[in-house]
Amino acid sequence: MVDDGDFDVVAPTGGAVRDLLQVRPGGPVDLAEIDPRSTPGLPGPEVTWPDRKAWARRQLARLGAELADQQEMLFAGAKADPGVGRRVLLVLQAMDCGGKDGTVKRVVGAMNPLGVHIRAFGPPTAEELRHHFLWRIRRALPPPGSLGVFNRSHYEDVLVPRVQERAPEDLWRPRYAEIDEFERELTDAGVVVVKVFLHISNVEQARRLLARLDDPTKHWKYHPSDVDARSRWDDYQAAYAEVLARCGTEVAPWYVVPADRKWYRDWAVAHLLRETFDTLDLGYPPADFDIARERERLLGTTGPVKVNGS
Amino acid sequence: MVDDGDFDVVAPTGGAVRDLLQVRPGGPVDLAEIDPRSTPGLPGPEVTWPDRKAWARRQLARLGAELADQQEMLFAGAKADPGVGRRVLLVLQAMDCGGKDGTVKRVVGAMNPLGVHIRAFGPPTAEELRHHFLWRIRRALPPPGSLGVFNRSHYEDVLVPRVQERAPEDLWRPRYAEIDEFERELTDAGVVVVKVFLHISNVEQARRLLARLDDPTKHWKYHPSDVDARSRWDDYQAAYAEVLARCGTEVAPWYVVPADRKWYRDWAVAHLLRETFDTLDLGYPPADFDIARERERLLGTTGPVKVNGS
Repeated sequence: MVDDGDFDVVAPTGGAVRDLLQVRPGGPVDLAEIDPRSTPGLPGPEVTWPDRKAWARRQLARLGAELADQQEMLFAGAKADPGVGRRVLLVLQAMDCGGKDGTVKRVVGAMNPLGVHIRAFGPPTAEELRHHFLWRIRRALPPPGSLGVFNRSHYEDVLVPRVQERAPEDLWRPRYAEIDEFERELTDAGVVVVKVFLHISNVEQARRLLARLDDPTKHWKYHPSDVDARSRWDDYQAAYAEVLARCGTEVAPWYVVPADRKWYRDWAVAHLLRETFDTLDLGYPPADFDIARERERLLGTTGPVKVNGS
Repeated sequence: MVDDGDFDVVAPTGGAVRDLLQVRPGGPVDLAEIDPRSTPGLPGPEVTWPDRKAWARRQLARLGAELADQQEMLFAGAKADPGVGRRVLLVLQAMDCGGKDGTVKRVVGAMNPLGVHIRAFGPPTAEELRHHFLWRIRRALPPPGSLGVFNRSHYEDVLVPRVQERAPEDLWRPRYAEIDEFERELTDAGVVVVKVFLHISNVEQARRLLARLDDPTKHWKYHPSDVDARSRWDDYQAAYAEVLARCGTEVAPWYVVPADRKWYRDWAVAHLLRETFDTLDLGYPPADFDIARERERLLGTTGPVKVNGS
């Protein structure tokens, strides 16, 4: 751990990370034009001196503390006013090894676990397959006041059938509109949806898969089907590009985070969440009781209290 | 943050924390005899020099890293062998302000949130009241491979009716046997149950409630009913003592953690969890695929890969 003293959060360069990384609704997306090693918004070397990786990691520690405070305010607000139902849902999608788990560990892990609600979606079970594809998603929504995280999501249901199962287009294409509708419902119910595609390069995926094969403590993360999916890389990239363009709406935007550099990925996602929380105008709710009277009641139950005792 | 260099985890003094803090099954419990400011197992000043609070906090950072590794192995093992179903369930009980939330934040928060499953139990809802008291508990059990945390639990259902609602004994007393039976079922299903009572003093509770009243960012944590419960302090202590003695079984032991000092509380709970994980003989599962062949398949999908590129 690094002693970073009074190191404050430094604003991204060139505007909010949300603006830098958001997919323009409806616009075409060419993933080949987005460099997975790029670092949009990262301040220049005059700020990140002497080492931008170490700098980004120290910033992440600060950002994490701020996210924890923001999350607590969201939680406190929901407790004070259960009718409002405000919450944030982070949807994480990526190719295998794209860094979904790492993002959860390092960014989401900075917040109080009491206020975080994580759900990972694997291949649908037999029971799930008997239901509409959004059935299991609806059952996993975060409670009011929390940050929900979907590690994979309903977007698997437009990607996997198309690319892996070569399903007919009329199976998966109509789902775009259903997803739009679903996400609009969520927004209406107070759920702020933040969708992140962690964008890694083909060669970076190969490196990370090899690293898993070479490390016995990582074998459990490897599955031979990862290579099958990898062999359809271009198809997946094309399918993702369409999804990002088609389902990146004003109410539920998609963000493409260059993710070959883990330290940039974490820094960028932390800023995205911070900027999202900022839009919620968070604060601690006022007391709904008479403070002076409660003080009196409390002191009536006790002898002299040395408040600053340790 | 403190730069603690190569600071290793130091074993508790006088044996495992589990042994030091466990309630003897069946034996009488006198909470007045357990000093909430005591620090069982904490090494002496020749080790914790120059400041045992700072020392315990640095140890907690190390313990947290180890807990994260142990939790990952538990998770990996469950993924490799879904039939086993092994998981750990930490049950946290305490008087108001006893530190349940803080323990979750500081100890459980050190682990990867993907492998942690937290559930807080408030007063039963109308729907929950229509069911058996264990109904909502059974629905909240952690999935295999995870660390579950109950922030309050089924023990509320023997404490609150007795002390707060003055319910007749034949409502709550038969629940002891049902809880025994339930916890035995859990153990049979691979759930390792660790029950922790965070033991604070009456005066420490007053200090913490006052601190909540005096800090506008903490008003949301205060409720006037906290003072009502406080006015029945002795009744709650007696009810807890009986619960600890009656339901502290060999298969699902109770631990009393002195909790007036937050840094000791966190240190002790972290050791309890670490020692519990140690009993599970954890390790990473072996590959269930042919490593050399997968390496070959992978390299077949790619050009030359510079493995150590950054």
